[in-house]
Amino acid sequence: MSEPIVICECFARDGLQHETVALATTEKIAAIDAFTAAGFRRVEATSYSHPDRVPAFRDASEVLAGIKRGAGVHYKATCPNPRAVGRALADLDAGHGATELSLLVSTTDSHTERNLRTTRAKQWEAVAEMVGLAAGRFRLVGVISMALGCAFEGVVDPGVVVADAVRFAALGVELVSIGDTTGHGTPTTVRALFRRLAEEVPGITPVAHFHNTRGTGLANCMAALESGCRYFDSAFGGVGGHPAQIQYGEGLTGNVATEDLVNLLEAEGLSTGLDRDAVLAASRLCEQILGRDLHSMVARAGFGLLPERSPEHV
Amino acid sequence: MSEPIVICECFARDGLQHETVALATTEKIAAIDAFTAAGFRRVEATSYSHPDRVPAFRDASEVLAGIKRGAGVHYKATCPNPRAVGRALADLDAGHGATELSLLVSTTDSHTERNLRTTRAKQWEAVAEMVGLAAGRFRLVGVISMALGCAFEGVVDPGVVVADAVRFAALGVELVSIGDTTGHGTPTTVRALFRRLAEEVPGITPVAHFHNTRGTGLANCMAALESGCRYFDSAFGGVGGHPAQIQYGEGLTGNVATEDLVNLLEAEGLSTGLDRDAVLAASRLCEQILGRDLHSMVARAGFGLLPERSPEHV
Repeated sequence: MSEPIVICECFARDGLQHETVALATTEKIAAIDAFTAAGFRRVEATSYSHPDRVPAFRDASEVLAGIKRGAGVHYKATCPNPRAVGRALADLDAGHGATELSLLVSTTDSHTERNLRTTRAKQWEAVAEMVGLAAGRFRLVGVISMALGCAFEGVVDPGVVVADAVRFAALGVELVSIGDTTGHGTPTTVRALFRRLAEEVPGITPVAHFHNTRGTGLANCMAALESGCRYFDSAFGGVGGHPAQIQYGEGLTGNVATEDLVNLLEAEGLSTGLDRDAVLAASRLCEQILGRDLHSMVARAGFGLLPERSPEHV
Repeated sequence: MSEPIVICECFARDGLQHETVALATTEKIAAIDAFTAAGFRRVEATSYSHPDRVPAFRDASEVLAGIKRGAGVHYKATCPNPRAVGRALADLDAGHGATELSLLVSTTDSHTERNLRTTRAKQWEAVAEMVGLAAGRFRLVGVISMALGCAFEGVVDPGVVVADAVRFAALGVELVSIGDTTGHGTPTTVRALFRRLAEEVPGITPVAHFHNTRGTGLANCMAALESGCRYFDSAFGGVGGHPAQIQYGEGLTGNVATEDLVNLLEAEGLSTGLDRDAVLAASRLCEQILGRDLHSMVARAGFGLLPERSPEHV
């Protein structure tokens, strides 16, 4: 339990991807600066998705140019295809690049088709090409979506996830984010998958990227933690849902709320390296710029008791 | 893992206790009938609190007289004091009694004073008197509030909870509900407490009664489950909060949402004995009679994958 916990704050990208409120570039920069001030060591800042396809991130370069960088802090940008990596390289050469790039795959063809408009085989070819372009310039993060079940195809074979992680490892990718994209994971399936990853793919650092679609996000984070995972993705206010999907029965697929994850980890005696007051300040800022109450319970209730006061932890 | 799971549906009492919407008696009866139809084996139906103090339950006798009883289903009523037991006995003699009574204590004097307007010592005297009146006529349920931390006094010594459980056992009380009243428990503290209860108080059946104040409800339920707990309390829509308290920084203290708990347990391969379609129908009814969306995620997203399709469970 002594290895430090590293939380990647995903509000500014995964959180805003499907947001119906259009944010000003200055608001995004203010949010990311608040995350840096709170002590996050990894921040998902933006996406180099095609501006026509995801207009929310058309200001990717401006955001990366405008933020105040924290010492040793990684700023991540999502790259769905080689052209996106070209934009990331141009920004890096211009002095305001991301330091990490996410490279996306999904365990199922159905989701790959809907999310990336290609097949798994072709996306893996694209990933290899992206790694060729980016290697040595950025820390690379593989993202495996639908890793614990798929909204379109149901149960996902954990062997597919392990094989994809092996493939990322072979390409030299350092971190691999395990996405429970539509909240089908349970503590048992999470524990089994993260144990397999630790045993069979020791060359990568797994990241727990869980959505709270069915309320199981924190329970699943605890299961990953028990299996040795120390890297987590979450978003302030638990944002990241597809509000439009609710009407079509696919449900809210928001991220685990950062405030709630930080509270639980710290209450469990683990250090997140974050300043609790600054976390609450960033939480308020995120609610303010989206103009509504978000989904964090701790945002309403405040942090709980600290573990040094709890007899089980001393 | 083979012992059956028993969920007590608490919407009609703990859920409505601080509700600002006043429900008609017929609406409460319709909700309880929907719970019975869904297969719940225990339903918290009402409270014999003084009608002037908690007007929401002034119709306790009418509710118990109006519901359709399921075979073998327990209907519980809360009794804060001996006078309440007197009312419960009168209803029983009239042919429409509860089958279970809750007898309340709290681990701290601060909360006992605020919630029951007495001291711990005097409340334990009242509990002994209530047991004397009720023994043999009802199944008795001891309730220990603030068992995992107190909003007013901070950390609670687990030894106090164990001693209270021993005291209930000595009085012949069969079930003891362990209340995380303000959401301070963590998986580690829950696991430790439930293990101690199993070892040191084998004569009682512990019940996990957790509030989702800081989003940890389901993670804590999993920890209790891992420590052998098979009895859970929850409420449809996660109701039970004190909306007024939010403004004063004490936060939302709603119950674990039944829909989300049922989904998680069933996804983990455990049988709750409940009909999933009827659970969703009851969920919709609860939202309809309160006139708003409640806090269950599964109410929005639907149930997840069933475990027989998940390779870890076969």
